[in-house]
Amino acid sequence: MLTYKAPLRDIKFLINDVFNFQKHYKDLDNGENADPETVDMILQSIADFAENVLMPIYQSGDAEGCHFDNGVVTTPKGFKEAYQQFVEGGWQGISYPEQYGGMNLPMSLNLIKSEIIGTANWPWSMYPGLSTGCINTLMQYGNDEQKETYLHKLVAGSWAGTMCLTEPQCGTDLGQVKSKAIPQEDGSYKLSGTKIFISSGEHDLTENIIHIVLARLPDAPEGTRGISLFIVPKFLPNAESEIGERNGVSCGSIEHKMGISSSATCVLNFDEAVGHLIGEPNKGLKAMFTFMNTARIGTGIEGLAHTELSFQNALPYAKDRRSMRTLSGVKDPEKVADAIINHADVRRMLLTQKAFAEGGRSMIYHAARYADKMSQAVVNGDEAEFEKWDDKLGFYTPIIKGFLTELGIESAKHGQQIYGGHGYIKEWGMELIARDARIATMYEGTTGIQALDLLGRKVLLQSKGKIIRDYTSNIMRWCGEYALDKDMRKFVWALTKLCAEWNTLTVRLMLIARKDREIISAASDDFLMYSGYVMMGYHWARMAAVAHEKIKNGGTESEEFYTAKIQTAEFYFDKILTRTSGHAESMVAPSESMTAMKIESFAFLD
Amino acid sequence: MLTYKAPLRDIKFLINDVFNFQKHYKDLDNGENADPETVDMILQSIADFAENVLMPIYQSGDAEGCHFDNGVVTTPKGFKEAYQQFVEGGWQGISYPEQYGGMNLPMSLNLIKSEIIGTANWPWSMYPGLSTGCINTLMQYGNDEQKETYLHKLVAGSWAGTMCLTEPQCGTDLGQVKSKAIPQEDGSYKLSGTKIFISSGEHDLTENIIHIVLARLPDAPEGTRGISLFIVPKFLPNAESEIGERNGVSCGSIEHKMGISSSATCVLNFDEAVGHLIGEPNKGLKAMFTFMNTARIGTGIEGLAHTELSFQNALPYAKDRRSMRTLSGVKDPEKVADAIINHADVRRMLLTQKAFAEGGRSMIYHAARYADKMSQAVVNGDEAEFEKWDDKLGFYTPIIKGFLTELGIESAKHGQQIYGGHGYIKEWGMELIARDARIATMYEGTTGIQALDLLGRKVLLQSKGKIIRDYTSNIMRWCGEYALDKDMRKFVWALTKLCAEWNTLTVRLMLIARKDREIISAASDDFLMYSGYVMMGYHWARMAAVAHEKIKNGGTESEEFYTAKIQTAEFYFDKILTRTSGHAESMVAPSESMTAMKIESFAFLD
Repeated sequence: MLTYKAPLRDIKFLINDVFNFQKHYKDLDNGENADPETVDMILQSIADFAENVLMPIYQSGDAEGCHFDNGVVTTPKGFKEAYQQFVEGGWQGISYPEQYGGMNLPMSLNLIKSEIIGTANWPWSMYPGLSTGCINTLMQYGNDEQKETYLHKLVAGSWAGTMCLTEPQCGTDLGQVKSKAIPQEDGSYKLSGTKIFISSGEHDLTENIIHIVLARLPDAPEGTRGISLFIVPKFLPNAESEIGERNGVSCGSIEHKMGISSSATCVLNFDEAVGHLIGEPNKGLKAMFTFMNTARIGTGIEGLAHTELSFQNALPYAKDRRSMRTLSGVKDPEKVADAIINHADVRRMLLTQKAFAEGGRSMIYHAARYADKMSQAVVNGDEAEFEKWDDKLGFYTPIIKGFLTELGIESAKHGQQIYGGHGYIKEWGMELIARDARIATMYEGTTGIQALDLLGRKVLLQSKGKIIRDYTSNIMRWCGEYALDKDMRKFVWALTKLCAEWNTLTVRLMLIARKDREIISAASDDFLMYSGYVMMGYHWARMAAVAHEKIKNGGTESEEFYTAKIQTAEFYFDKILTRTSGHAESMVAPSESMTAMKIESFAFLD
Repeated sequence: MLTYKAPLRDIKFLINDVFNFQKHYKDLDNGENADPETVDMILQSIADFAENVLMPIYQSGDAEGCHFDNGVVTTPKGFKEAYQQFVEGGWQGISYPEQYGGMNLPMSLNLIKSEIIGTANWPWSMYPGLSTGCINTLMQYGNDEQKETYLHKLVAGSWAGTMCLTEPQCGTDLGQVKSKAIPQEDGSYKLSGTKIFISSGEHDLTENIIHIVLARLPDAPEGTRGISLFIVPKFLPNAESEIGERNGVSCGSIEHKMGISSSATCVLNFDEAVGHLIGEPNKGLKAMFTFMNTARIGTGIEGLAHTELSFQNALPYAKDRRSMRTLSGVKDPEKVADAIINHADVRRMLLTQKAFAEGGRSMIYHAARYADKMSQAVVNGDEAEFEKWDDKLGFYTPIIKGFLTELGIESAKHGQQIYGGHGYIKEWGMELIARDARIATMYEGTTGIQALDLLGRKVLLQSKGKIIRDYTSNIMRWCGEYALDKDMRKFVWALTKLCAEWNTLTVRLMLIARKDREIISAASDDFLMYSGYVMMGYHWARMAAVAHEKIKNGGTESEEFYTAKIQTAEFYFDKILTRTSGHAESMVAPSESMTAMKIESFAFLD
């Protein structure tokens, strides 16, 4: 019963009116490929595919789930056919070089593609999504032979890829990885070990699956400094990149999960599987880290996707369902009761979803421009340029991943709530969105890990607060431009106050942390959420400014569209941004209130 | 893999140290039955039953679900046997009069029983839970013949009961009920219509099921003033209360739900089913309302149950799972990494669960004393006395139901999050708790309905703010007693400030509402959550005071237990109570930020 329409009007508002992607594309090597007509065509085509091919198999795919039989994984009905269409459309390769068969469009378009297909069917989108991780790793760290052997098929989508990091004893703490890689005389390696939670680890969509695997060389140092990266194909390719012998990697089982059940989450057993080293020995973790920023933006998109889908499906129900009369007076006198969209509390939930979807999209599209630069640097083999943009993106990554996925869970909850008891019934689909959204704060680094990355690593350790000073000074400069604009006053003053507070809090935490290292962990979640709300506030203020300008300039046929942007911004500042207060107070609370309790005092059950 | 131990130490801390139930029982007609030894024995027996019989069939019951075949519903393996043991223990009747075969213990013990069995297996507990609703309705509104015919079997548990309110077109807005009751010459009625979402509507646990049904008489006024209450048994009983002919009520299907899948949620079709009027014609809604306070406390218990269960199962994992080193220094040097319970951010989640569980339990046990008084009034047929205590309970009901079920969802989320990716895997069970917890904010009146009941009905309409003035004056008096106690200073000052703010906010809302009725709906959710956090803060302060006193008096063997109470209170005040700030700011925001947007401007998708 779920439906989806790609919100192209909102997407174009951002890429044209707010961020002027055409101007940004002029500075990219491959920017001229992305002329306005091409962009429009790409967006429309991917929207058609998502709406008509992926959406109809979203709920049925969940109900059926993946099948596992003696190492073979079969995806739900329709998944293979949809994937075939995806390959035929060339969609896997839109942002990869023509040299490998790609369309050589900017990476930002690939992210927008991910958003659209992910909103229509997140678990399906994970199959090409994991391939992207594999392709990006090979693009950046593979040697010429590896690129030549694998990238053509991966970029075409006829082969798929995975990222094999997690093991039973460790996820985040990759220093505990035990999988072994034994060097062979021919320069290859034999890999043995067990990997778990491998998304798309085995399936029937492609003739081959290329695993990127973290493992240890025999003489590797302990911990994270002894991890290397390997490429391990399911079928060993010959010189013509045609599949040959089956490799020693097999799927031991698939997980039974709360959601994303049509995405195969595999236990992979490597038993003397033939692999090849990617990049330098023992530098695998560094490679993973440079790859992580974009992978985490990809997961941040999941937060947006589930917010948007839940909103789109809560809205028609709120217009149709009738219950009670509106407090300010009867709205639909000819009907037995008013549509529930008239009740302010229902509007609160809908507007929260709307504000999170459109605000989150703005945050992601802003960051997507850094991804364009990084992708260009990878193609050009310009490491310094890559690091420069990766560094810039590094501030946004934990916020987009950590904050937006938390909002995805909240939004999906609102969507269910608007349906009342029907929100709990499978047929309606709102509960599926909630179940699927739930994974996003756990994989690709939990919210706690994002929070520690933001506050501990990026704000305090790496920049001693400068990153916040720089970001807030941008906001303040922008506020300065609008300080005398009475339409914008409300936003400008609220943001200015928050910029001052954000800096003060950062300094306070820095000072406390000198004596009390635990404050960094104790405050991290509040700091992450606080940062997210302020950043989204800035994005809403910018969208409101653009909308006001459009209306003032007149001649627009879309005045209602722009008015809705301004109203949503006002809602966000009145009802959502207020959440910063609690986080601000809580983050500077003494860490002792968390650390004091003895481990054995948490419960007295015997 | 889930486990449960009834937290008897925490339960006894409340009923003995904090609330002195023995003193309270002295004022009850049936209080002398509840001497300390009996209470201990009851608690221990119900704990044994919950831990050893109900817990082991919780996860398996979810995996199997209920079966539906041509109108017959079969519960999962083990459910019937467990129910038989429940009946043999006499547990259904512990708080009902001996006249009907009950144990005649105070109703508060029945609520604690509900908590313990509900924590072990919430969906199972819904079968006896719905019977309770049916019994309470008959106790209060049934005539002597109806009581004699039905109560013996219902109190014994050999028959079960339901409450049939919701129809496809309406849940909350019962004025839209369409089911018809046609009077017959013999004084009975024939009921026709469709009821949906009927928990325990059909199952194999008992030989008969007694439905309490809302329907309209032919000449009934429109809307809520035309609803009457009927008793409609599945099998018509003869004069000896033995089952006879099958009645015209049948189960059309059961719902496929996000969770509580072992609890049958039925579509019931009434086709000229024989029923009898309960109470007066057209007064059915009033009867439902007086019954609702206790039913909603029962749902509030679900919030506590899922919080406790998630906490109990997150705790051992946090002690076992090892990842990274603690920021303040290595904790387990001999191990590959520190247990994650050492990380402050993990402690934040565990302590949030602990604070919500123990704080929520305190709120419910406080309210349980009103339930004792109401139950006594029903037995004595003293309507005025009933109304007096029902009125008092009425302030707590929407907070306990609305606020604690929201916390149940949050807590279950933390429990999953502590497990990382494993929190998403069915085997571990943490995701089941999250799925089951999700229903609690939707049924028995959504959170939005509780919020409107609190702010609109009870605070503004019925009492013009007096209810808040009264409640806060109690807190302030209590604070006055501790104002000079340096151990308590932190709690006392924070609460005093909040009491002032709570009153100010109430007055501000009252003034705004004179011109702008929509503010009541717009502010209601914030007001509910704000009220909940402050109320729970008061409970934590009281528990801290008792704990301090116990430690000061010395001679206790449980100093660590009491210290943990104080530490949890400090955590609550430092990290949770700060959430009130955002709600306070948001609730007085202009309702226009919610009402201004035109319905057609919420989305521009075409």
